[in-house]
Amino acid sequence: MLTQLTLPAVLETRLGPATLRRASEADLDQLISLLSDDPISASRGDVGSASDRAVYLEALTRIIGDPNNELLLLVDSTARAVGTFQLTRVPGMARRGATRLLVEAVRVHHSDRSAGAGSAMMRWVTDVAAPALGSSLVQLTSDAARGDAHRFYERLGFVPSHVGFKYHVTETVR
Amino acid sequence: MLTQLTLPAVLETRLGPATLRRASEADLDQLISLLSDDPISASRGDVGSASDRAVYLEALTRIIGDPNNELLLLVDSTARAVGTFQLTRVPGMARRGATRLLVEAVRVHHSDRSAGAGSAMMRWVTDVAAPALGSSLVQLTSDAARGDAHRFYERLGFVPSHVGFKYHVTETVR
Repeated sequence: MLTQLTLPAVLETRLGPATLRRASEADLDQLISLLSDDPISASRGDVGSASDRAVYLEALTRIIGDPNNELLLLVDSTARAVGTFQLTRVPGMARRGATRLLVEAVRVHHSDRSAGAGSAMMRWVTDVAAPALGSSLVQLTSDAARGDAHRFYERLGFVPSHVGFKYHVTETVR
Repeated sequence: MLTQLTLPAVLETRLGPATLRRASEADLDQLISLLSDDPISASRGDVGSASDRAVYLEALTRIIGDPNNELLLLVDSTARAVGTFQLTRVPGMARRGATRLLVEAVRVHHSDRSAGAGSAMMRWVTDVAAPALGSSLVQLTSDAARGDAHRFYERLGFVPSHVGFKYHVTETVR
């Protein structure tokens, strides 16, 4: 838990006011559903299989118990999950000792797209969370196949200045 | 400190055997020197100015005291700093609850390039550190201007599947 964050927070969206709050173990099924709702995630194995529930619960417990991590859930007025993302605070030497804020696993349910929920979440990250955590740099990577997402981040002021590399250990380790 | 890592470790390079070890406050000046040795870092403000020593020391202390972060230094047989990089362990929900290992601030001194030091450091990350930390995915971003670095990471098996976005909070926050 990133204790410096004031949560829950109310975000304005075209779905009406939505509540951004810390995720808890009780949200597990909604979180798995948001992940598997995304075709690219599904292609990487996040298919929402019942047999994977234990590994997701273990991961959620690790995130919740970590002082540098926060898993957020955006819910509408009926408590239905609209979106999620994860924040990781990363201390660093580069850029004159800048502390970075890493954003991972941004998801908005497909039925809630184009309602400003994603923008409201990312605006909260850049304008509220980053200053509260003393982070001068927010960073994320987005799959090269997500053209719509890239335009979305550029509209918000994110600069596509880097190439994001991944190395899959389990496939290549000897 | 990532306590699961067995350090120091001896890495083979064409400079001879080099020692990879945890950085300490006593390494501050060598670390600043490695950062400012890089033209792209220098263009972002890492110029090795004496007046910045305090912010770097503060950052180094934050990294060393963090259970999910490790700052590594590679030194040759004369204890001279050859290279550095930082590791951050990031728990996550995506990819069936995969824990990621984020690599930041990879630097090799310009006089030691093409001697296999960078490869040896990254091979240690993918083949030793990631398995020891239970990470199935290693990820990093590299400035789009670093063409040589991109070829280097691809040779090591890293896949340039993502676009890396940065948002500069200090320049845009109101």
